[in-house]
Amino acid sequence: MFWTQWRIAQQVHCHTIIWWGVMMMVPQSKNLRKARCGVLTVEIEHVDAETLERLERQGIDCQPKASTIRIIQDKYLQKVHFSRHAIPLPEFMQIDHLESAKRAGELFGYPLMIKSKRLAYDGRGNAVARREEEISSAVNALGGYARGLYVEKWASFSKELAVIVARGRDGSILCYPVVETIHRENICHVVKAPANVPWKVRKLATDVAYKAVSSLEGAGIFAVELFLTRDGQVLLNEVAPRPHNSGHHTIESCFTSQFEQLLRAVVGLPLGDPSLKTPAAIMYNILGEDEGEPGFRLAHQLIERALSISGATVHWYDKPEMRKQRKMGHITIIGASLGIVEARMKSMLNEESFDGQTAVTPRVGIIMGSDSDLPIMKDAARILDMFGVPYELRIVSAHRTPEMMFSYASSAGQRGIQIIIAGAGGAAHLPGMVAALTPLPVIGVPVRASSLDGLDSLLSIVQMPRGVPVATVAINNATNAGLLAVRMLGVGDADLQARMSQYLEDTKHDVLVKAEKLEKDGWEAYLNA
Amino acid sequence: MFWTQWRIAQQVHCHTIIWWGVMMMVPQSKNLRKARCGVLTVEIEHVDAETLERLERQGIDCQPKASTIRIIQDKYLQKVHFSRHAIPLPEFMQIDHLESAKRAGELFGYPLMIKSKRLAYDGRGNAVARREEEISSAVNALGGYARGLYVEKWASFSKELAVIVARGRDGSILCYPVVETIHRENICHVVKAPANVPWKVRKLATDVAYKAVSSLEGAGIFAVELFLTRDGQVLLNEVAPRPHNSGHHTIESCFTSQFEQLLRAVVGLPLGDPSLKTPAAIMYNILGEDEGEPGFRLAHQLIERALSISGATVHWYDKPEMRKQRKMGHITIIGASLGIVEARMKSMLNEESFDGQTAVTPRVGIIMGSDSDLPIMKDAARILDMFGVPYELRIVSAHRTPEMMFSYASSAGQRGIQIIIAGAGGAAHLPGMVAALTPLPVIGVPVRASSLDGLDSLLSIVQMPRGVPVATVAINNATNAGLLAVRMLGVGDADLQARMSQYLEDTKHDVLVKAEKLEKDGWEAYLNA
Repeated sequence: MFWTQWRIAQQVHCHTIIWWGVMMMVPQSKNLRKARCGVLTVEIEHVDAETLERLERQGIDCQPKASTIRIIQDKYLQKVHFSRHAIPLPEFMQIDHLESAKRAGELFGYPLMIKSKRLAYDGRGNAVARREEEISSAVNALGGYARGLYVEKWASFSKELAVIVARGRDGSILCYPVVETIHRENICHVVKAPANVPWKVRKLATDVAYKAVSSLEGAGIFAVELFLTRDGQVLLNEVAPRPHNSGHHTIESCFTSQFEQLLRAVVGLPLGDPSLKTPAAIMYNILGEDEGEPGFRLAHQLIERALSISGATVHWYDKPEMRKQRKMGHITIIGASLGIVEARMKSMLNEESFDGQTAVTPRVGIIMGSDSDLPIMKDAARILDMFGVPYELRIVSAHRTPEMMFSYASSAGQRGIQIIIAGAGGAAHLPGMVAALTPLPVIGVPVRASSLDGLDSLLSIVQMPRGVPVATVAINNATNAGLLAVRMLGVGDADLQARMSQYLEDTKHDVLVKAEKLEKDGWEAYLNA
Repeated sequence: MFWTQWRIAQQVHCHTIIWWGVMMMVPQSKNLRKARCGVLTVEIEHVDAETLERLERQGIDCQPKASTIRIIQDKYLQKVHFSRHAIPLPEFMQIDHLESAKRAGELFGYPLMIKSKRLAYDGRGNAVARREEEISSAVNALGGYARGLYVEKWASFSKELAVIVARGRDGSILCYPVVETIHRENICHVVKAPANVPWKVRKLATDVAYKAVSSLEGAGIFAVELFLTRDGQVLLNEVAPRPHNSGHHTIESCFTSQFEQLLRAVVGLPLGDPSLKTPAAIMYNILGEDEGEPGFRLAHQLIERALSISGATVHWYDKPEMRKQRKMGHITIIGASLGIVEARMKSMLNEESFDGQTAVTPRVGIIMGSDSDLPIMKDAARILDMFGVPYELRIVSAHRTPEMMFSYASSAGQRGIQIIIAGAGGAAHLPGMVAALTPLPVIGVPVRASSLDGLDSLLSIVQMPRGVPVATVAINNATNAGLLAVRMLGVGDADLQARMSQYLEDTKHDVLVKAEKLEKDGWEAYLNA
């Protein structure tokens, strides 16, 4: 048994092929023999739930359960189900005719979101009535009341989030990192992992997703789409009982991709680690533009640029035809921070300025209160040059340009900066103030000012209150600040760490040469040389 | 043209299938039509070079070139070729009969490595004569002089290294990180990426590999196997003109796997970034043990343990039969440092003690000169507990246990420690001495001793000479040392960084609550409360 399971799971590298291979058994369900089918899963929820139920009665092992597919494929039933399980959702109600639609409008206000109960995905099955008069045309666009409609209160969200949740056959549940999904005309266009939202929101989103999946039956992968409202609530939008576009980034960015995880889950292997193996990832859907050759040409040019971008992986689905907004493929870019992968995506999308080289994002920001600190602070830049670490160097004064300091410190991480080196003298507030405004490590260089031999600068920088650390180096020793930044980056970069070991070796060698010379020449000759 | 190329390259996720698919065209070469074959490459060098040459003359585009395959498939020719190109190699000479073999023995000394010129791989085709009397039996084991033999001077190496090198159709060359290969009975068993050797050695190995591949013709992937000798030389062992076992780790650990790179190279797409996307990887070959069911059972148990290990990916080749030493599959473990992945591999291999949980490797080492520092240093531990960062806590004194300090600092990185927090008071030498012995970032906590209010401790820790930084925090402020460690780890861990942002938010909230209370109650009531 284990070997058969394992041979299936083993094929996971050919995920698309196997995924379809396993899933496409559904239409051929009449020919399924229990003996030949270890487990049955679905690649889309819009299958015939009755057939699945019949198969279950015949002893076929469906994961997730037919009951789950039945609930999920009807978006109204889904809402009823989750609302019974106390999962937070936007308000909703069924509409059967114009009167009930109008009543919903009075209750929920406008714009009013009207949705089909069934066969709704990738933006299909949604229509908006901006005022009462538009209800009829919106309903007609969806095919009329007889198709089964319901309305949802307009969710005034600030962001859309999603969580891929895996459940094993033993009921164990693991959640992937919360991602932000950005839609274009209701179609998922960009996914950022992890979502750039406060930790508390990530926890809340994970909790809602966990609870939603706990209420469903069977093993598998579930994609939970969520709204983050302007007042900080997390509401469930909908759930898909399968790998999902919002989880495609996991192929390159997580220890276990959602596709491998699906196979682990349904065949009963232990679930794999769902966490990110790289600090950040961004996924860009290649959506159909113009039909025919011109559309393909555009996609082709995009792919050509992507192939030159470090950390980018291109997935082309090889669909025979291109249609406006059709998902033709996707590109995932992984890297050391969200700032870095966003910069790379921007460069990939910018046809005009693209030069085949990946834009170099500075990893370290060197800032100083005044240009008079530059003769000292340049030593940090020299070290970073020596180790090939990209940096930016700026004058930012805590006392003379407080607003600039504020905006520099609070935006640095988003721009891809990973470490800040700040130098200041006297009442040296820059390093500590910057550290109070960013979660990045801040290295402080006390610059000797006109009095007290730099002790004022040192104490102003090092004696930070509990809660906000500044990594302080010796007075005027910006060389050590640069070296400390390299050591910090070396925590996640074996190459830099090896080079730092080599630097220590080389320094040792330099001292040994001097020691030998001193021993050979004697101290008098040495001093007179 | 581009689209066809791209459709091939696109399939790269199903690497084994396509790899074989493309390569297995060679035996069917008679039926190859130029029109139907964009490019021809090989999956093993032991093919008929004459056929390849004929195909080239017929206009088939072979990458790498038939000339390269001809050179590489004959290991003696290979040595002659590389020696002509001034690539450093162990001394070697052809042997045709016992006399020439004896002459070689006199020249090179014993043990003498006798090798077949052709069809030698995975340990086949090598025999050792430990003294002159053993020459004949070694030669017989290899099939006699008529098979084509040569001898190599015994390379007294300290490590075996390997470099995967990619060359594009435009001649551009990119090298993957240098790895260490560990053999068991001449079969590759474990690969560590990156190799745990000094940076200088990595550079030297990369240079030799680059130069070797530059001397060959055609695009593709080349695996360059090297010896690191005890006196620090890097000698070429042999080159394979194809993806190689020493590059299997790249599937999970590098931005571009060697298989995707092969397709990019031979079809003329830009080469992808060959660098590591994760700090470290270890690959373990599942070698055949006993034949039949018992052997499979052992492999099966190993795979079962691997499936519970975070960062481990199992590749099972599904070969129908198991033979002693046959490569049946491999397991790659990736993680935050070589120490961490080595600890996980050890736990995977240890049948007895394996408990299904991945061993937790401490990421931070908290050390202090004396137990009297513990009441202060515990605050760092509290912060790490709060953020869920595993740590170890030890007493290590620079002055009273200098040897222990030396061994602690120099082995910390190899054990998986990523940051060291060191606390000391008075003439506080511990943080600085530790920083001198490791490339890891060291955070220093000045502990207030009996005099000078801690200023002695502070200055002893912060005023380090140029070259060796200590990230110093405020006197007695081990809380900030813990927070600084979390910020440093957050550079490569988006989750920790988000939690640090949340910590800053929460601290702000606490202060605002107090501010509100003060405003509401007035200062007198506030002080008396």
